[in-house]
This record gives sequence, structure tokens and C-alpha cells, in this order.
Amino acid sequence: MARLVMKFGGTSVASIERIQHVARLVKTEITAGNEIAVVVSAMAGETDRLIALVDEAKAGNPDVNLDRREYDAVVATGEQVGAGLLALALNAIGVDARSWSGWQVPIKTDNVHGAARILGIENQALIDGLNKNQVAVIAGFQGVDEFGRIATLGRGGTDTSAVAIAVAIGADRCDIYTDVDGIYTADPRIVQRAHKLDRISYEEMLEMASLGAKVLQTRCVELAMVNGLVLRVVSSFNEPPDPNDGTLVCDEDDILENLMVSGITYSRDEARVNLLQVKDQPGVAAIIFGILAQQGINVDMIVQNVSRSSTQTNMTFTVRESDLDRSIEVLKASQNKIGYTDLTSDANVVKVSVVGIGMRSHTGTAQIMFQALADKGINIQVISTSEIKISVLIDEEYTELALRTLHSAYGLDAAEV
Amino acid sequence: MARLVMKFGGTSVASIERIQHVARLVKTEITAGNEIAVVVSAMAGETDRLIALVDEAKAGNPDVNLDRREYDAVVATGEQVGAGLLALALNAIGVDARSWSGWQVPIKTDNVHGAARILGIENQALIDGLNKNQVAVIAGFQGVDEFGRIATLGRGGTDTSAVAIAVAIGADRCDIYTDVDGIYTADPRIVQRAHKLDRISYEEMLEMASLGAKVLQTRCVELAMVNGLVLRVVSSFNEPPDPNDGTLVCDEDDILENLMVSGITYSRDEARVNLLQVKDQPGVAAIIFGILAQQGINVDMIVQNVSRSSTQTNMTFTVRESDLDRSIEVLKASQNKIGYTDLTSDANVVKVSVVGIGMRSHTGTAQIMFQALADKGINIQVISTSEIKISVLIDEEYTELALRTLHSAYGLDAAEV
Repeated sequence: MARLVMKFGGTSVASIERIQHVARLVKTEITAGNEIAVVVSAMAGETDRLIALVDEAKAGNPDVNLDRREYDAVVATGEQVGAGLLALALNAIGVDARSWSGWQVPIKTDNVHGAARILGIENQALIDGLNKNQVAVIAGFQGVDEFGRIATLGRGGTDTSAVAIAVAIGADRCDIYTDVDGIYTADPRIVQRAHKLDRISYEEMLEMASLGAKVLQTRCVELAMVNGLVLRVVSSFNEPPDPNDGTLVCDEDDILENLMVSGITYSRDEARVNLLQVKDQPGVAAIIFGILAQQGINVDMIVQNVSRSSTQTNMTFTVRESDLDRSIEVLKASQNKIGYTDLTSDANVVKVSVVGIGMRSHTGTAQIMFQALADKGINIQVISTSEIKISVLIDEEYTELALRTLHSAYGLDAAEV
Repeated sequence: MARLVMKFGGTSVASIERIQHVARLVKTEITAGNEIAVVVSAMAGETDRLIALVDEAKAGNPDVNLDRREYDAVVATGEQVGAGLLALALNAIGVDARSWSGWQVPIKTDNVHGAARILGIENQALIDGLNKNQVAVIAGFQGVDEFGRIATLGRGGTDTSAVAIAVAIGADRCDIYTDVDGIYTADPRIVQRAHKLDRISYEEMLEMASLGAKVLQTRCVELAMVNGLVLRVVSSFNEPPDPNDGTLVCDEDDILENLMVSGITYSRDEARVNLLQVKDQPGVAAIIFGILAQQGINVDMIVQNVSRSSTQTNMTFTVRESDLDRSIEVLKASQNKIGYTDLTSDANVVKVSVVGIGMRSHTGTAQIMFQALADKGINIQVISTSEIKISVLIDEEYTELALRTLHSAYGLDAAEV
């Protein structure tokens, strides 16, 4: 017997038929003798419908901060409905279940409405229910602040809800049901020989999540890692479910063989900015990145080239593609302050990354990457590395070629397509 | 300055445009210096959409009682959305406002889910908000039971929410905004010369509500009467609103001139049952109406005719038309127990009633009714009376003729059509 949290996203509960399918998945776990808490999103499309109503209703309101509390009160109803309907569908097939809104648990949050953080979860009522073999169906994405107002966690927050609840009730595992059947070595739509990983470490999953693999939210993986909670990413579309389906996200010690590279990811939402002939003096980088930070613009890869002159340098960095125009604007406005001669940029770039906990113990990981790309004539524009990741910025038109080349170079290709 | 509760039903908040119109009505009262709490329904159609989802999700569930709690959790979201959107629309036109769900106030109810009664309302938080000139926008139709589960008050419960809140915060008046502009002497679709009443007593309104006038729920009028709270029924479709619009529902002492008859109502949802040659002995009525009560069938008008035989009597009574088939079924199954010789019934009947607090002090009210109907050749099948009401059962095809005839006979016709 295990205590499990099962999390279902919006596409998994998009219709009553899908909710009834989810109910059967839950019943399978109950029949296997497990204690189950379910965390559920709003039916797909419902959150967008509610946001559109909010946008219409608040038209013309200058006070955005005040609105967020009402936004939360309205939008959080989507999950409340999802939880109630799933509880009904469970009851209908003979499974004792009840719904819980965030405030009923309660899931306590700070009061940053629309993007709140969970401060704590009262677990006693949930555990009392589980001890009576009652499935707890909990509305995700929400909690209640110190003033008793409903707060939402922001998009993707249901994953975080699920992990936080799993930690609070001492669950053995948190199963994230989604529309893919696990974590892949690369995007299978591009790399046909990509294969599903049975296990991946928290650290690798964190890098892959932050590098553009959309399956899990970074915050949810962090929370699981800090608390040593095993996650399983599994498809909600398989029936009957196989306990061996999906990918376990767990501690690296629980992975028998650490591959040099576990996955290859990419992000097209990148743009490169070059500042030419910047004065090479202490504090100039602080000025440049301070100006961007003030505008809320995140800078990712940074390279400071040595130039021929000893008093000048070239500065290259990447920002999100959607931030590029604004970045250029503020940098041009500060040209005198920074003291560069020219600014160039390129939005047609992609960041390709290889991620693997095995890099720590294997040497030559970077060399394989650089050689493989060079063999295909792919020019590397910027490089950045962490302990378990190497990222390169390349011309966007080489995306697919680079991914397939690296997938082969690191021996990740599946035997059969 | 007055403290007012303004209640808006589903058609008054059916769209964002309608919600913005309601926000302007509220602002008018605020600008006039009043303190305002608003009680709001779900957007028209939303409750039905949610009920349809519940019905689909619980398909096949034998345990109806358990479902009601989840039904409530799902359906109550409609009002939560309505309250949030109205608060946003008020903010957008510069009126400080916040939404309150039933559990946030809290509005405490018993745990008869789906048809809960309000047990008490914590008024302090609401009053604190009003003292800060913040409009309280409260989700109607809902509260929270002793176990922290959401409970709904049943259809029409938003009227009851509004009156209970008005009592709890010591409001000077509760304005029920609806799609008609007040209480009429008769249904204006049938009686062209019907006119709006400026004032009507609680007792009269109670009789009219229970006799089929759909504007106010009986429970809401009772609650106002017991607490001496003045109600105003007013249209939400007028702009700008006139403080003299609508009909006041108040104590009879506050009505200058009590008419003999204030209103004439009718109900088509009636059916007549006759049991012939029932044994005329003590206890037989208890047997008949006990059998019907056990089946949850309400009996309304009852007449026991004297028959020619001293040992037998004819029993005539009315039930709701929708209960007629079931009534006949259970009465036939108990024919031996009751001991009647024949059962006849007629669903083509209508109950027409005249209501007036003035009946207490005027004599001859019934005589006017009987004479006026006789003059038109309308046969009276059953009569029942209360202190301020006379009802007659007649053939349904005379409905319009009877209403117009009585409206004239009691001097209610407006001077101009």
C-alpha cells in the first residue's frame, strides 16, 4: 500500500467523458490498495473563458493590483468545478470521494494574487479523510491568503499544488498525469529516434524544464527535489494504466546508470544582442545588465569577448525574443552611459542544450558536442555551461539538424524508430 | 444616508454589459451617500450549465444524498464568478468594492445541501467594509455548513440571502432588482388595466407569492416580515433609476389606505380530485391525506361535501397538476382502506384568488367575488379562504375572463390603459 498524489491537468479533464476516464484511473489505484489524493485543474478552456470575462469586466480600471484579488476569486472557480465533478464521477463508480477547495484544506499562500506562493498546508483534515479510505479531490492552482481571500498560484500552478500537497501528507509519490507518456531524450516530433527515459534525476529535470521542455514546471521540480519526493510523469490517455508507464523523476542515487547526457533540449525564444567596442573597465557589465534588470528583462547567456584593443571589448548576450525590441530601445537610450559604438542583434537564433548528470564524472562531454556540430558545419555563436549542462546558441535554421546530430553523437538513438 | 442591500438576479447580470449597468446603478446609490451591500446571482444560464455538468458527472450514482455536497460545491461557483465580476466592474468606474463568497462572510447554514437554511451571518467583516465606504458584493444563494462545506439555498435562494444579509447588517431597506418594475394588481399580460402598487403589506405579498405571483420567494418575504425589513421590488432595466420606482413591501401600518383587495392572482398548476361516497366516519380524512403526505404530495384546497346519505360523503381536494397521476395511483391502491366507490379528477382547472388586507375590516368581499363570477356564468368548483384571501377553483378556460372581471369588480382598473 502506498499513499499517492495523482495530478491531472486541464486536457485530462476537458470533458465529462475525460473526467470519467480519470475516475477509472483513480479507481485502479484504489483497487490496488493505495490511498489517493487527486489534484485537479480546471476543464481545458475554462480558465481562459473566465480570464476573458475578467478582462471585459475590469475594462478601464487603472488599479491593476486591486483587480488581482477579484481575478483570483473568479478564476479559481474553474478548479473548484473540476474537483466537484471528479468527486461526483468517482462516487458514481462506487469510490468514496470528496472535493476540497484551496480554502477548505486550507492551502495557505502569501498575498501575491495571481502568482502566489504556498506558505503551508494544514494536512490533518486531508489525512483524516485518507484514513477513512476517502479520496481527496483537491482543486489545484489555488489557496487562501492570511486575509481569507482566494489566491491563485499562476499558470502551471496545479503541478506545484500537487507536489506541495504530496509533501504535506507524506505521500510516497506524486504522479503527474499529462498528455505525453513521459520525459524523452529529445522532442520526438523532431528527433524520431528519441526514446522515453525510465528515470531522470531532479537536477537534470530542472535543467530541462528551465531550458524549454514544457512537461513540468521548474517550481514543482524544485519543491520535489528539496523534499525528496519522487515524481512520475505519465500519460492520462492510456487505459488500462501500467504501473511501469511514464518517467520517474528521482534522486540521482536511485538511477543505476548515469548517462553522460540524458536529454537534448532547445529553445527558440532567444535573441542575441551584441554591443561593440564597450569600454573595458570595471563596472560596465553592472551598468548594462542593471539597465535591463530595471526593465524586468532577463538576460541568459553572456559572453564578453576580448577585442584587439586593450581598452575596449565586445559584449554578447541573449534575451527572450519577446523582450528584444524593448532591450534595444533601453540600450540605445543609454548608449552614452554605457559607451558602446554599435549595437547589432539577431532573433533568428536557437539555444540547444545537452543535459546530463553523468557530465560530472565523464570528461569530454563538451568536446563531443563541439566536434559533432562542427562536422555538420554548424557555427556556435555563444556557449554557456553549468555543472550538468552545456548550451550553445546557433542559427535557428540548423535546429533540427543539430538536435538529431547531438542525439546520435551521445548514443541516445533508440534501436528502433 | 441609508444602509441598503441591493439584490440582482441572473437576468440583471446576464452579460458583462448588464453587469456594467448594475455597477452604474450601485454607483448612483453611493453617490447619493448610501452604504451599499450587493447580493448577486450567477449570470443567467450559468447555473443551468453547471447543473447539466453535475448531472452528467454523477450519471449512475445511486447515492443522491452524498452528491448534494458536490452539487453545491460546483453550482455555487456561478455566484462567486458573478460577485467577482461585479466587484471588478465597480472598481473600473472608481467605486471601491470587494467580492464575498458565502464562506468568506461567513453565511452559516444547516447542512441540508441544495436547500439549506441560513442559521446565522457573521456581520462584523461586512460592516467593517461598509464603514470604509467599500461596497460589499456578496455571492447569493450560498453559505457554508458547520463542516466547512459549501451549501446552496436552492433556487431563488438569492432573494433569501439578500434579506438575511440586510437583517444581519441592520440595513434600512432591501431593494430586489428584477425584470419587472414592481408588484401589480394582476398579471399585466392578462389584465391590461392592471396597475403597479406603490406599497403592499408583507401579509398580502406572502399570499400573492404563495398563490403564484413569481416576483418574490415566500421565504424571503417571511424573513423580511419577521424582522420588519422594508423590501422594494424594482426593475434593473431602468436608467437612470428613480427613487420612487418600484413597489415597497412593508408593514400594513405604513400603508395609508388599505384597499379591500390589493391583488388578483391565479395558478394553473392545479388539479382536482373527487372521491365519491367515502365512508363518513372519524379518521377517514386523516387516512386519505396521510397516504398522500407519505408520498410527498401537497394537498391544497379541501372540501368535504355533505352527501344525501348520512353514512357517506364526497371528498374533493386539489393537488399540483404534476402530482395528479401519482395521486390517482396511490389513492387507487388504497381504495379498500379508504373505502370510496369512485374516483374522478380534472386537470383543466385554475385557482383564482383575491388578496387584500382590507378584507379584515370590509365586509362583503366574498359576495362581490361570487356575484361577479356568477354574472359571467363562471361556475365555482371549490372555495377556500383565509383571513386576507379568497380562492376559487374554476374551469381553466375562464381564467382570463375571471381575472378581468374580478379586477373591475374590486375597483382596481387603472384609469388609463
